[in-house]
Amino acid sequence: MADRSGALSEAQIIARLREIFESSDPRIEVGIGDDAAVVVGSKRQVMTTDMAVEGVHFRTDWSSGFEIGRKITAANTADILAMGAVPDYLLVALALTGSESLDWIIELARGVKFEADLAGVNVVGGDISRADQVVISMAAIGSVEKPILRSGAKPGDGIYLSSLTGWSAAGLAILKSKSPVTSEIMKKAIQEFKSPTIDYKFDTKSASSLCDISDALAIQAAQMAESSDVAFNFDLAKIEKSAEFAELEKIASEIGADIWQLIFAGGEDHALLATGLGLPGILIGEVIAGSGIRNLPAGVETSAWRHFN
Amino acid sequence: MADRSGALSEAQIIARLREIFESSDPRIEVGIGDDAAVVVGSKRQVMTTDMAVEGVHFRTDWSSGFEIGRKITAANTADILAMGAVPDYLLVALALTGSESLDWIIELARGVKFEADLAGVNVVGGDISRADQVVISMAAIGSVEKPILRSGAKPGDGIYLSSLTGWSAAGLAILKSKSPVTSEIMKKAIQEFKSPTIDYKFDTKSASSLCDISDALAIQAAQMAESSDVAFNFDLAKIEKSAEFAELEKIASEIGADIWQLIFAGGEDHALLATGLGLPGILIGEVIAGSGIRNLPAGVETSAWRHFN
Repeated sequence: MADRSGALSEAQIIARLREIFESSDPRIEVGIGDDAAVVVGSKRQVMTTDMAVEGVHFRTDWSSGFEIGRKITAANTADILAMGAVPDYLLVALALTGSESLDWIIELARGVKFEADLAGVNVVGGDISRADQVVISMAAIGSVEKPILRSGAKPGDGIYLSSLTGWSAAGLAILKSKSPVTSEIMKKAIQEFKSPTIDYKFDTKSASSLCDISDALAIQAAQMAESSDVAFNFDLAKIEKSAEFAELEKIASEIGADIWQLIFAGGEDHALLATGLGLPGILIGEVIAGSGIRNLPAGVETSAWRHFN
Repeated sequence: MADRSGALSEAQIIARLREIFESSDPRIEVGIGDDAAVVVGSKRQVMTTDMAVEGVHFRTDWSSGFEIGRKITAANTADILAMGAVPDYLLVALALTGSESLDWIIELARGVKFEADLAGVNVVGGDISRADQVVISMAAIGSVEKPILRSGAKPGDGIYLSSLTGWSAAGLAILKSKSPVTSEIMKKAIQEFKSPTIDYKFDTKSASSLCDISDALAIQAAQMAESSDVAFNFDLAKIEKSAEFAELEKIASEIGADIWQLIFAGGEDHALLATGLGLPGILIGEVIAGSGIRNLPAGVETSAWRHFN
């Protein structure tokens, strides 16, 4: 029927997407419509790309188009934040199967636009293809004066999280178990899995090293420790004191999960992991001389978490 | 087995890709390995993205990994050239099915690197995912002082092609017909389908409008005419005089195709279509007052060509 993308021309879809991504940012000299966008650049830039595949990174029966659009945009903008940079521009390549409704495509685009507005980033270009699964690939370009790498952590630095990790993994566990959703806090976890809240305002200016947690806290901490040639020493007592810990503990007991497994091995929260002195966020440990990560709670298994299929 | 990508860790694949895409360009301050690349930007930039899907844009039984890598890179860099810009940076997101050999993945990357070197562009970042088909999505970022849009054509301008279109479509027709490849010229056509030759040296500085031909000459000419609010008047006699015309005519007769259909409706050569005065390349007509395209050869059907499945 006419409301299926297979029957819609690429031109019709693109016309709707152009409306949605319309921007009045004066730095965009030529937006969607020519061979490429023309924009005002900056002296030093950061660039990254992140692809999401239906059935691997998202499920259309679990998440709405809006939520999927938000989540993938968040994954891309979080990588820009993780360099201490400001996201400026986004390019979106989308493969559709042909069975999506125009409404779903528009919801997806609105989700992208919603998260892009939170991040202050402009969608300046895109591409539409055909595939057997929906595939959404983005590239994000940001500007930075002094990039903050993974390699700058020094002994004596505190280790900080912009917000507690584990929510997305808890939401995924609830969806997988098909348990009834009986509390507001379970709803929050599911929402964080569908569209994680990115800490766009987290002040990283004085951070010595910085990273975003896409895979798992334990994995990204080990990567930063290795890049910086130091050890990351976790302080579980400090983590337990954070306001979010009590909330997450409640869910963990409701769903029979280990809270430390959620926090250290859960992924896709896209919280920022930073080192430095007197940073905002949750203090979770200290950088010390040596290598690797120390005081990981017993039984945490990071390799177990690999998307949901 | 160990040589299948399913058994290879993402880290192992990324380590090999980092080696292949290693660059000594001093503008790359941080390459692959952190959350994002850090590069020197420029005042005015062009940005574009283009995705290619196995079975839709390429077939692994027709093209080698090297050829596929070249072709997709070419499609992206050609869009940057089509703005009168210089390509600087490339981001590559790749979805693998898990049944690819490491050798094939490396060949694909080498094809990307080969074409990127021809274009003078650096691969600064990437992402690897899993999907049921191979999907390759790229974003290209270039720099420009004075972008050349599709909208600048003026009556009196000549219409130029950087090289004759139709080769890629001829190569596709040969592969589809499974005809025996009996001449060097047929080999050339097949090669142009697998990895089109991009006119990186085509001088567009004085062009009034510019575009790359991804879909078809007739389609892109109509788009430029509309954007510029003029008409494009083709001069078939001039096209017939071009050196490549005789070659392409030979193939057309060998495969029983209409040469005008190949030239005007064939796609994916990524030749540049320009308007202006005294440009290099092949003069194929004149911009006149009015709208639309004129003197399209009889019987040319542009909507018929939609990839190969």
